[in-house]
Amino acid sequence: MGRARLRDLGITIGRFPTGRYNAITDVPGVTVGHRTLIYDQPSVARTGVTAILPRGESSRQDFCFAGWHSLNGCGEMTGLLWVDDSGMLMSPIGLTNTAQVGLVRDAITQYALEKYAGAGYWLPVAGETWDGWLNDTSAYPITKEDVYAALDAAASGPVAEGNVGGGTGMICHDFKGGIGTSSRLVALRESTYVLGVLVQANYGDRHLLRVDGVPVGRMIGPDVAPLPWTQPPLSSSILVIIATDAPLMPTQCRRLAQRATVGLARVGGYGDSFSGDIFLAFATGSHLARSGDGPQFVQVLSPGDMGPFFEATAEAVEESILNALVAAETMTGYMGHTAYALPLDELRRVMALYRPKL
Amino acid sequence: MGRARLRDLGITIGRFPTGRYNAITDVPGVTVGHRTLIYDQPSVARTGVTAILPRGESSRQDFCFAGWHSLNGCGEMTGLLWVDDSGMLMSPIGLTNTAQVGLVRDAITQYALEKYAGAGYWLPVAGETWDGWLNDTSAYPITKEDVYAALDAAASGPVAEGNVGGGTGMICHDFKGGIGTSSRLVALRESTYVLGVLVQANYGDRHLLRVDGVPVGRMIGPDVAPLPWTQPPLSSSILVIIATDAPLMPTQCRRLAQRATVGLARVGGYGDSFSGDIFLAFATGSHLARSGDGPQFVQVLSPGDMGPFFEATAEAVEESILNALVAAETMTGYMGHTAYALPLDELRRVMALYRPKL
Amino acid sequence: MGRARLRDLGITIGRFPTGRYNAITDVPGVTVGHRTLIYDQPSVARTGVTAILPRGESSRQDFCFAGWHSLNGCGEMTGLLWVDDSGMLMSPIGLTNTAQVGLVRDAITQYALEKYAGAGYWLPVAGETWDGWLNDTSAYPITKEDVYAALDAAASGPVAEGNVGGGTGMICHDFKGGIGTSSRLVALRESTYVLGVLVQANYGDRHLLRVDGVPVGRMIGPDVAPLPWTQPPLSSSILVIIATDAPLMPTQCRRLAQRATVGLARVGGYGDSFSGDIFLAFATGSHLARSGDGPQFVQVLSPGDMGPFFEATAEAVEESILNALVAAETMTGYMGHTAYALPLDELRRVMALYRPKL
Amino acid sequence: MGRARLRDLGITIGRFPTGRYNAITDVPGVTVGHRTLIYDQPSVARTGVTAILPRGESSRQDFCFAGWHSLNGCGEMTGLLWVDDSGMLMSPIGLTNTAQVGLVRDAITQYALEKYAGAGYWLPVAGETWDGWLNDTSAYPITKEDVYAALDAAASGPVAEGNVGGGTGMICHDFKGGIGTSSRLVALRESTYVLGVLVQANYGDRHLLRVDGVPVGRMIGPDVAPLPWTQPPLSSSILVIIATDAPLMPTQCRRLAQRATVGLARVGGYGDSFSGDIFLAFATGSHLARSGDGPQFVQVLSPGDMGPFFEATAEAVEESILNALVAAETMTGYMGHTAYALPLDELRRVMALYRPKL
Repeated sequence: MGRARLRDLGITIGRFPTGRYNAITDVPGVTVGHRTLIYDQPSVARTGVTAILPRGESSRQDFCFAGWHSLNGCGEMTGLLWVDDSGMLMSPIGLTNTAQVGLVRDAITQYALEKYAGAGYWLPVAGETWDGWLNDTSAYPITKEDVYAALDAAASGPVAEGNVGGGTGMICHDFKGGIGTSSRLVALRESTYVLGVLVQANYGDRHLLRVDGVPVGRMIGPDVAPLPWTQPPLSSSILVIIATDAPLMPTQCRRLAQRATVGLARVGGYGDSFSGDIFLAFATGSHLARSGDGPQFVQVLSPGDMGPFFEATAEAVEESILNALVAAETMTGYMGHTAYALPLDELRRVMALYRPKL
Repeated sequence: MGRARLRDLGITIGRFPTGRYNAITDVPGVTVGHRTLIYDQPSVARTGVTAILPRGESSRQDFCFAGWHSLNGCGEMTGLLWVDDSGMLMSPIGLTNTAQVGLVRDAITQYALEKYAGAGYWLPVAGETWDGWLNDTSAYPITKEDVYAALDAAASGPVAEGNVGGGTGMICHDFKGGIGTSSRLVALRESTYVLGVLVQANYGDRHLLRVDGVPVGRMIGPDVAPLPWTQPPLSSSILVIIATDAPLMPTQCRRLAQRATVGLARVGGYGDSFSGDIFLAFATGSHLARSGDGPQFVQVLSPGDMGPFFEATAEAVEESILNALVAAETMTGYMGHTAYALPLDELRRVMALYRPKL
Repeated sequence: MGRARLRDLGITIGRFPTGRYNAITDVPGVTVGHRTLIYDQPSVARTGVTAILPRGESSRQDFCFAGWHSLNGCGEMTGLLWVDDSGMLMSPIGLTNTAQVGLVRDAITQYALEKYAGAGYWLPVAGETWDGWLNDTSAYPITKEDVYAALDAAASGPVAEGNVGGGTGMICHDFKGGIGTSSRLVALRESTYVLGVLVQANYGDRHLLRVDGVPVGRMIGPDVAPLPWTQPPLSSSILVIIATDAPLMPTQCRRLAQRATVGLARVGGYGDSFSGDIFLAFATGSHLARSGDGPQFVQVLSPGDMGPFFEATAEAVEESILNALVAAETMTGYMGHTAYALPLDELRRVMALYRPKL
Repeated sequence: MGRARLRDLGITIGRFPTGRYNAITDVPGVTVGHRTLIYDQPSVARTGVTAILPRGESSRQDFCFAGWHSLNGCGEMTGLLWVDDSGMLMSPIGLTNTAQVGLVRDAITQYALEKYAGAGYWLPVAGETWDGWLNDTSAYPITKEDVYAALDAAASGPVAEGNVGGGTGMICHDFKGGIGTSSRLVALRESTYVLGVLVQANYGDRHLLRVDGVPVGRMIGPDVAPLPWTQPPLSSSILVIIATDAPLMPTQCRRLAQRATVGLARVGGYGDSFSGDIFLAFATGSHLARSGDGPQFVQVLSPGDMGPFFEATAEAVEESILNALVAAETMTGYMGHTAYALPLDELRRVMALYRPKL
């Protein structure tokens, strides 16, 4: 399940409480499955697929509202034009590597056709970040069966972080990156809503890395933890998936997605030019059909209620990225390249240095 | 009330029935008021203000969903960023000329402050097209009292067309243009919804004008009806306001607004480079507060129900523009410039020419 | 090469002259290749791939500016987020069916990796429309070798229309549809620019079909040309690719793409709710590298020069769709479904009926 | 000129050097003028206008590329649709309060008409934030002459910060806010470009305020510096103007504008629901006419060159906001409301507490 979680190290982000597992699966109905490919023959594979189902098996008929935002578009997420115009998410979400995001996209529909006798998913959402430093992408190792395996593995409860699923070969702030997750509880009048985040983190320069405001990246030099490359590769990216059980409408989901930038900026991301920083938010609080027998009754929150959700999104994104960094273990892969894990003892040391001298 | 309406001439657009007045006011609650300024001293005024209240007097507290689309942005419509993020229309809409759209925008809020003891409209929506060929814009003739007068005049029932309100000095397809309106009834299962349109039409070249597909503009030369100018001025635009009582959400309103292009294209518009072709749609089917005591229950239609609304929007926009053209009368104004009305006998003649030889 | 072209029937759209082939390939450097799959065993295939290379073989290093617009997003076109942020088109464009657009997207990069020793295309653009009425999509007949074949077939000169490439199994206004193309010459001061369009037309209701304004669809009933279905399937779409050698910048390309709606509206499209009407424009007038040694010198046109390009785009889109309809031949496919070609003699008859009684 | 600047306190943001004045006016040609209204009779005025001219007096004919981004749209900035479609900034920028942004918008054009004998600015850009806590907005104190005064005052060189111009009555992170500015030098191969920022800061909760990552807001309680209100008002916002002499095209300007979110997030903003967080970037490196005699030659940077500009933008936005906070002085205004300045000694104390125990 990864080396550690951020809160194991005594570091807390923000002011909202977390859900039970501090994971996107704290949002009722949301399930996550990983398919991880790590082997050295016949080619070096350090890749995989992560599947997120907004309502588990019901995701095929019982849709939810959704919206998205792109901080920087040097990346792919399929299906977004239909999210724009329907305002809904009508498929599972697949996260994988750059070279095979098309395969994952096609396979999500094919899975449903085979499993549910002809009723496929429409225009599925599949996103990617580039793992070609550790993974031999030219071998195209992922098969449609791997996508099916990720979908079949989807479950509620704790979510594995670090070198798993789509995040297997990812690198973040020049440390080993990958999958991370976190959640927040937002109390609003008599209700408490859950907001969960999952990231596939593969972006960033070391010198910009901050943990709760502390310039950790500047304090852990290459002498302590070597950089993964001498000449950095061009591509880097982060995918952020945000889920909530609050009854938000599409416009409001888009606004949530846009707040991923706030959490990302606090950790040290700025949407580099060759980065694909793409964020999707969905809200399970309303239930919708693609074609209905009449107007569908849904709930929406007032504009005046959105503030806490925005702040909670920023917190959960910030913590999800940090969870990816503290979970991911050092990995050696393609061409002997090594991406070093963020050293936890060094992290503790630097955080202590910057604690107030009270 | 204008010379005629298109249907008076035996010309019908499309297949959907109209509402009672074939006007935007067929949507229950929508009211329209004009303030028209036509005088020659101390300066030549051919301008005005048109006010559209989505729910009459209740518009200040009882909001509706809204969305917008710009075919070409050489124009101003204030308040659109808040329509984007709230998904709502929280003010009356003011239509006027280019030079004074800021005054109209400020005055809408001031009106509410004065009338309702301190509770103003937020971020009002005010749009403009340029009437400087017939109107001496350098005299800045419109006052805040004129804006108040348009708001006070707002009423349901028939809507004056042609040389009235914001449309007073407008020119369309090189004929006299102005305000036009139309409506459609959309039957969906056991319900019938109303969709109404109002345009301020000030765009277009004569050679592109088509009436129900017939190339009328090419058939009415300057020998028959002189062009308003030898050298056409740069600016030209069309504002389209779409209203419906269907329970659409913001995303769906934006999609309606985008379909104004379809109706406009059929008449002969293409979003010229110096044109401000800006479209706003609102839906009164849901009732919303800016800040609520809890989630608000609303209805939405399925994506699968939107088609007829799109087709009806295109029809009503097409007919609204043509209503503006057949209503507007020849006008002489600033610097002696004259804009000639579309000659109705010529229109009848050309339409007959292109009728099938059955 | 299809049954006929619109101009063979004596029908001309608009006022701009066409290029030599009246095809997208009139834009210097643009090449088009089709791979068409028509067979009945082991499964019924009526599908294919169309490849458009913005600069032929040079497309891999010598980029051009680009922009896009979606009239309705129930469809997929990959790579658009990078077009947004780079402002460039950095890959060939692949057009295909819905089920396999991911495969086509991945294969475009793989093709370059294999052919050019490791230097792939980034984030390729692949679009789709749904051909499942005539094609057994559950057989997933397209292979990466088919994509390679379309890319290898890309050539300048005349372009096959109708039942070819990605358009093989498409249906338009309830007649057989498919691929169509057209071009326009735009004279601007001492220069003449070429603007070309290619469509994959798979949208529309018969009753809305118009040819140069004439309501042809209403005049050709199912008694004369049967409808392809008793109960229309949900999905329908149109992809429009616009190319020009004018030196437009990304903003200006986006504006061109938006004008595809104008041409589409004139023929009878309105962006139905389950339609994917997605438009991409690119301009070869500037040459760009992804990473440069310094600022790159480019030309741009003034906003004041855009009008004729907008009008020409609308014309070329209108004619491209009509070319697809008059080229495509009646096709029988999956489950014995038949899509009937637009009967050319009937088209001639109706057009004559609506000609002026001079 | 304000109490202090951040660097006077020994606090430095980021790694890029600043320009000569550490102000937006470090970008050659950019001028800034303030008109400040502070008086108590006949009404309490704490408001004003700030004018930014992209090229000083030449701004009327010699345009520059521009782009914008809205983090949250509960605010007004006029003229943005034309920035979208022209890709250019064709007017000075006016910053003021919410109630009178329309007046400022209209007056910018009127100023040019009067000064330049009939050649006005098209579709001017005017933005607002709400100063109604300290300023009696119901008195509508700003006149067109005040706008003219701000335009006439525009100059290069040092820029006054804090309680000046449009920022006069603003409140930020529950301290007195207002105008702030900063700049960065970006070296790229043999060139050095300047990037400057000016903010009108009126947003934010105290508990989120961070200075270079240090949680200053949490460490300065209401016992030390009282909150300006017991019940916070709804509205709050930040306008960010970004200028550079790098030869960026519109797409690239928009990307710069989007990075304002990164700097804002580091200080503690997140785009609250009733906030108008609107960002505009312009680039003076290219010179453009609205209508030209031929293609205009411009330079653009490669996508691969944008990264440092993004990072520099984030730094300059962060420092501009902090400059506003350390410059602004405690102010008492309308209804006796007081907004307290960020206490500089407390700021120093907290920063020292969080410095590493080396």
